[in-house]
Amino acid sequence: MNGADSLVHSLLRSGITTCFSNPGTSEMHFVAALDRIPGLHCVLGLFEGVVTGAADGYARMAGKPAATLLHCGPGLANGLANLHNARRAATPIVNIVGDQATYHRPLDAPLTADTEGWARGVSGWVRTAMDVRTVGADAAAAVQAAMTAPGQIATLILPSDTSWNEGGVVAEALPALPTPPVSPNQIEAAVTALRRGGAGVVLLLGGVGLHEEGLALAHRIAAATGCRVIAQGSNARMARGQGRLPVGRVPYVVDAAVKAMAGTTQLILAGSRKPITFFAYPNMVQTSVPEDAEVHILARPEQDIVEALARVADALGCPKVAAPDNGTRPEPGRGAPTPEAIAATLGALMPDGAVIADESVTFGRGFFAATQAAPPHDWLNVTGGAIGGGMPMATGAAIGAPGRRVINLQADGSAMYTVQALWTQAREKLDVITVLLSNRKYAILLGELANVGANPGRTALDMLDIGNPDIDWPRLAGSMGVEAARTDTAEGFADLLAHALKRSGPFLIELLI
Amino acid sequence: MNGADSLVHSLLRSGITTCFSNPGTSEMHFVAALDRIPGLHCVLGLFEGVVTGAADGYARMAGKPAATLLHCGPGLANGLANLHNARRAATPIVNIVGDQATYHRPLDAPLTADTEGWARGVSGWVRTAMDVRTVGADAAAAVQAAMTAPGQIATLILPSDTSWNEGGVVAEALPALPTPPVSPNQIEAAVTALRRGGAGVVLLLGGVGLHEEGLALAHRIAAATGCRVIAQGSNARMARGQGRLPVGRVPYVVDAAVKAMAGTTQLILAGSRKPITFFAYPNMVQTSVPEDAEVHILARPEQDIVEALARVADALGCPKVAAPDNGTRPEPGRGAPTPEAIAATLGALMPDGAVIADESVTFGRGFFAATQAAPPHDWLNVTGGAIGGGMPMATGAAIGAPGRRVINLQADGSAMYTVQALWTQAREKLDVITVLLSNRKYAILLGELANVGANPGRTALDMLDIGNPDIDWPRLAGSMGVEAARTDTAEGFADLLAHALKRSGPFLIELLI
Repeated sequence: MNGADSLVHSLLRSGITTCFSNPGTSEMHFVAALDRIPGLHCVLGLFEGVVTGAADGYARMAGKPAATLLHCGPGLANGLANLHNARRAATPIVNIVGDQATYHRPLDAPLTADTEGWARGVSGWVRTAMDVRTVGADAAAAVQAAMTAPGQIATLILPSDTSWNEGGVVAEALPALPTPPVSPNQIEAAVTALRRGGAGVVLLLGGVGLHEEGLALAHRIAAATGCRVIAQGSNARMARGQGRLPVGRVPYVVDAAVKAMAGTTQLILAGSRKPITFFAYPNMVQTSVPEDAEVHILARPEQDIVEALARVADALGCPKVAAPDNGTRPEPGRGAPTPEAIAATLGALMPDGAVIADESVTFGRGFFAATQAAPPHDWLNVTGGAIGGGMPMATGAAIGAPGRRVINLQADGSAMYTVQALWTQAREKLDVITVLLSNRKYAILLGELANVGANPGRTALDMLDIGNPDIDWPRLAGSMGVEAARTDTAEGFADLLAHALKRSGPFLIELLI
Repeated sequence: MNGADSLVHSLLRSGITTCFSNPGTSEMHFVAALDRIPGLHCVLGLFEGVVTGAADGYARMAGKPAATLLHCGPGLANGLANLHNARRAATPIVNIVGDQATYHRPLDAPLTADTEGWARGVSGWVRTAMDVRTVGADAAAAVQAAMTAPGQIATLILPSDTSWNEGGVVAEALPALPTPPVSPNQIEAAVTALRRGGAGVVLLLGGVGLHEEGLALAHRIAAATGCRVIAQGSNARMARGQGRLPVGRVPYVVDAAVKAMAGTTQLILAGSRKPITFFAYPNMVQTSVPEDAEVHILARPEQDIVEALARVADALGCPKVAAPDNGTRPEPGRGAPTPEAIAATLGALMPDGAVIADESVTFGRGFFAATQAAPPHDWLNVTGGAIGGGMPMATGAAIGAPGRRVINLQADGSAMYTVQALWTQAREKLDVITVLLSNRKYAILLGELANVGANPGRTALDMLDIGNPDIDWPRLAGSMGVEAARTDTAEGFADLLAHALKRSGPFLIELLI
């Protein structure tokens, strides 16, 4: 058996069933192996940023890693931005990066690049396979590394000769590494803080603390102690909707974040990090947390967050509580397509079990409140600030959560980064509705330019304006096989969303805002 | 003056006049400075791969670097693949990469990444500015580094506080570093080899050896000695057409390369490297050069290649020769759109001074011969093997060579990598004609799969097939403001090319092949 065959068999033994790919020459033996060995669903992306972003969205929903197949250093480089986002989400991913044969690398052929060096910045685990006999074991180790809590990126670089040489050995799955236990001191500190009681105590949730079970425990604790429950600014996956505790996120805008965190005296971190601002600004704070707040780490991201919350609830003797009633669903919005109107329409129409892939940037900051009474759904953020995450994430989420409807709330400037994702949605006939929020500018940067005190002139405005020419989104989507339509009213949006929800396969709604 | 102002002033003093940009938050002071200080032409790209590829194309034609403006680590990462290509072309580029404020970086905000680490793999010079007082000097040093022969990538990382702090100092341009002299031994060895005479002696040209003056000298040497003149496989810029010595390139396909280099006894490298294969393959050679050939380095890429050729011609007493007559232009091709027919049409219709941006991959391998009798033109290759270089390169070349017509010979699979370049072509009203070679597959990989002896099945073919759905290129181009049309005959292609050449601004011809 050659190395490529041993790799595919070993990935399968370790539970990998999906491979997002954009192969090149050095991966041809791997491609041939995929042909011979059934069991891996291969999904082609026309750009590596689509491949890695889809792997991120997939794992967030499937709860296990996909593999990616990437070509040499530059292929990996094209996927780095969405791997950066995935790293910030603690998403497990197994990258297989083909590369020059071990003995060809010293000749510095044109495609030779520092593949390992580029991989390091995003990967918790990097290995270059150097011998065909250990490629199978390398694959098993990569999956184990990816699944190490809270989840990380494992990159296996595969010189082509380790792929084509004979002598491959299939490796069995390796056991998951144990999660570091939550110490009694961590529990005790949180319990003591919560006993002081009141709204000055903030329980800041991250990671699986924002899944259904964690939220239910946080609800019990809050009901018993009066603490506030807040989510990190960006989250891999958040359970929301009717029956789930509605939790706000720490806002992106510094003043709003400071206001949200005002009055915090005790900050309890459960799978989250102490909030810091996305950027520094002249003469502004770097954290929204009051200086004199005490910070307690109840559970680090890699610890068992749900168990920690349960132990706290038990120690405090928090009674069981009924699931929260988040009120009645809003009516669809009317008139101008304001954030409020669009949010109301989303809240009114999104189906049970929807998955929201959110890269709505400035326009979508108000979408949260209006959707809390919608049916249960999951909400995924672009977590690392690298734009271009939304469309690929939606693509992967649809594959990772078959049967659920994905709604991608998508800013136009970010959409253009990885627009090729639409083609994969069409090819795979994925139930993704893209709500393309078309403001024809980098609106977030206009805010940032104001923050730096600049009074923008023509040159600056031109660099933040993506109109001239306007992008015709229905035409763009149609060119890649995705049906689409445009509207500039809330009523039109409601009609199109209702239409899109009745059909299957991808659909794009360009909403002029 | 703040750091951003000192940076812009210093770039201008060092001769930078064009900035390809995709800014983010940490670059807002730089954007504001561009507003206040006239002289830099700012060109927006909707994806960083467009920005860096355009900077590559620009410098190849303008003979001086452009600046790029990129946002943090992930923004740089999105541009790495085309920086890799530019590095292989020895193109001078000055990257300005905004980043977290120096004192914010330790907090590891979401967008924080290993910006320097990612920059190293492509940059000959990397510096992170750490103090506002030296930002101007850093900029001057970056331009000097970029211009160091044969040209390299200089990356200046700019923490946002070094941009907004007061205390900036404008720096004057630094003198170019001297080119390492060509030693008498280098000349002597080449002269001796050439005196042995005959077709066994191969003069392999690279770099500026392929510009007009170098080619004319090579012509004189070949006429006097009977040596063969061959170009490297991929070249930054090659002077071609009527009156220029027609020179073939070392082929990509190994067997063809071996055939092209067969019989070589003396290999003289003038700004080139000894040919090696793009990849290793089981049981195939790694170089097309016969094992017993003697290799002589007449000029390394960073030496004065033209001077070295002139000294050789003088030492050999090569007489002046008339410019070569490359025959008569072909007639436009007819019938099926074969490579031969399309090449003939190109040869028949391309205007004087055309710039060919060539990412035609498999289909275009025969385009060279049919265009040698066309009017004088320049031919640019994607040099590093990272696909997605063609459209951005064409975009930048049009800005670097105003008044000249750019024809981008573009494979469809590669085009999808950086398709956003069309939008910049429309916004800047660039005279770029894209000849989109639409075969709806990764044809090169089908060849590579055959090379590895695989008999492809459905899974493999699906990963190399970019039809299903077919991409509608006229619609895609139109969505970004570029007029376009489709044809599937040589006659249709000739009509559309003639039409496109009569109008101004960008045009895309989808050629179904």
